[in-house]
Amino acid sequence: MRIVLIGAGNVGHHLGLKLHGAGQEVVQVFSRKRLRAKDLAKKISAKATTSLHQISEEADLYLLAVNDDGIAEVSQKLVEVGLSEKLMAHTSGATPMTVFESAGAKRFGVFYPLQTFSKNRQADFSKIPICVEANSEADYFLLKNLAEKLSPNVHRISDEQRSVLHVAAVFANNFSNHLYHIAGDILAKNDMPLDLLIPLIRETVAKLDDGSPAEMQTGPARRGDEATIQRHLNFLKKHPDYAKVYKILTDGIKSS
Amino acid sequence: MRIVLIGAGNVGHHLGLKLHGAGQEVVQVFSRKRLRAKDLAKKISAKATTSLHQISEEADLYLLAVNDDGIAEVSQKLVEVGLSEKLMAHTSGATPMTVFESAGAKRFGVFYPLQTFSKNRQADFSKIPICVEANSEADYFLLKNLAEKLSPNVHRISDEQRSVLHVAAVFANNFSNHLYHIAGDILAKNDMPLDLLIPLIRETVAKLDDGSPAEMQTGPARRGDEATIQRHLNFLKKHPDYAKVYKILTDGIKSS
Repeated sequence: MRIVLIGAGNVGHHLGLKLHGAGQEVVQVFSRKRLRAKDLAKKISAKATTSLHQISEEADLYLLAVNDDGIAEVSQKLVEVGLSEKLMAHTSGATPMTVFESAGAKRFGVFYPLQTFSKNRQADFSKIPICVEANSEADYFLLKNLAEKLSPNVHRISDEQRSVLHVAAVFANNFSNHLYHIAGDILAKNDMPLDLLIPLIRETVAKLDDGSPAEMQTGPARRGDEATIQRHLNFLKKHPDYAKVYKILTDGIKSS
Repeated sequence: MRIVLIGAGNVGHHLGLKLHGAGQEVVQVFSRKRLRAKDLAKKISAKATTSLHQISEEADLYLLAVNDDGIAEVSQKLVEVGLSEKLMAHTSGATPMTVFESAGAKRFGVFYPLQTFSKNRQADFSKIPICVEANSEADYFLLKNLAEKLSPNVHRISDEQRSVLHVAAVFANNFSNHLYHIAGDILAKNDMPLDLLIPLIRETVAKLDDGSPAEMQTGPARRGDEATIQRHLNFLKKHPDYAKVYKILTDGIKSS
C-alpha cells in the first residue's frame, strides 16, 4: 500500500518506521518541521515535504499522525488541494471520525495505535492494540488489513467506544502514573527512592494476567483493616491533598 | 544459617523456597495448618510442626512470616517457651520492630521483602527489595548478610521509614490497581475488554526507568486540555464516584 504520512512526531515516527519495516511503501512524509520530515523520510526511503500543497496525489492512504487540534485543519487542507476522494485516517484516540466529514472528505477512518510513544523508546507493535474504524466497509477492511501487518492485536472500535476508551486510558495511564508520583514524593521526603516500589508496581500489573483487578486487590482497604487505614490517614495529615486521594480510593475499594 | 520459619502462607512459602534454594538450612516450618506446614517442609527438606511448643531451640534465626496481627502473639509464645535470647525477625511492612520488645524478646529485627506474593506465581527475588533492620548492629549485619543471599537489592530501613513505605506502597499498588478496576469497569459497560489497555499500562510503568513520574506524565490534565477534561467529566456523569476520582487526580496532576 502506498501511504503518505502526515506528521513526524512521536506517533508518526514510530508508525513510519513500523509501516516501512512491515513492507508498506511510505511514499512521502510531511512535517512543518523540515528536519523532522527529512530525518524520518530518510530512515524509511520516503520523500520529505513541509508543504501540504506538495502532498503526493499518488497514495492509497493519507495517514494523519498530527495533534488532535491539527486534524480538522489538515484534512480541510487535503480536501482543498484536491484529495477529497482519497482515503484519510487519523491516529487519535480522542477525535471522532466525523472530523473528516466536516472537512468535506468522502472516504475516511481511524487508525489508532493504543500506546504512549516516546522518541527514545522502541515501540513493540506486537503488543500494541490498533483500533480501526472507517465510514465504509471496504475502507474498514483496508485499514484492518494494514493494521494486521503491524500487530496481531487489531480491534474494530466505534467513535463512541473510542471516546470511552480514552477516558479509561486516562485512569489506567495518567492517573496511575500520578499515584506513582505521590508515592515517590512521600518516599523522597523520607529519604527513600521510588525504586524501592518499582518491583511491586510491576508485579501489580503482571498479576492482571491472572485475574481481574478486583479479584487481585489486596491491602488494608480490601481487608477492611481500619487500624492501618487510620494510621495512614494520621501520617497523611502533613499531606492533605494526598489524604483526600487516599480516602476517596479507599472508599472506592471498599465498595467495589 | 539455621532458620526456623514460622508461617507457611504466601510470604512464608516463597521465602522458604528461596532460602532453601540459596543454601540456607531451614530446619523447621511452623504453621497452624498441618498440610501447609508439611507441604512446604517437604519441599525444602525441613521438619514440620503445628505447635509452637515444639519449635526447635537449635536455630540462629526465628523468621515470623505470619499476619501482622499474629506477630505479637507468636513472639510472646516464643519467649514463653524459652527463646527470648534468640534472634527473631518478622516480614511485615506495617509492624514496628518494637512489637518484639513488648513481647520480652532481647534480639530482634525486620526482614521485609517488599513484594506482593501469590501462591501460584513464581517470585523473582533478584528484583525484590529486602528491607532489613535490627536492634543491634551485629544482628543487623547478620540479617543484611542473609538478605544479600536472596537479592542484590537490600536496604536498611528504619521502623519509621518502613511505615512511610507502607503508605506509599498502598498508593503505588492497591490504589493503582483500583484505577485499573475503574478503567476495566468503564470499558466492560461499553463492550470492551481491559486487555485493550494492558500494553499501555505496562509502558507507563516501563517509562519510569527513563524519568520521574512527574517528568513522564502525559494526557489532558498535564496538557491543560480543558475541552477534553470537560468531555470526560460529561461522560462520567453516569459514574459519579468515578467522576470524583477523575476530578481529584486531574487537580493533583495540574498542581504537581
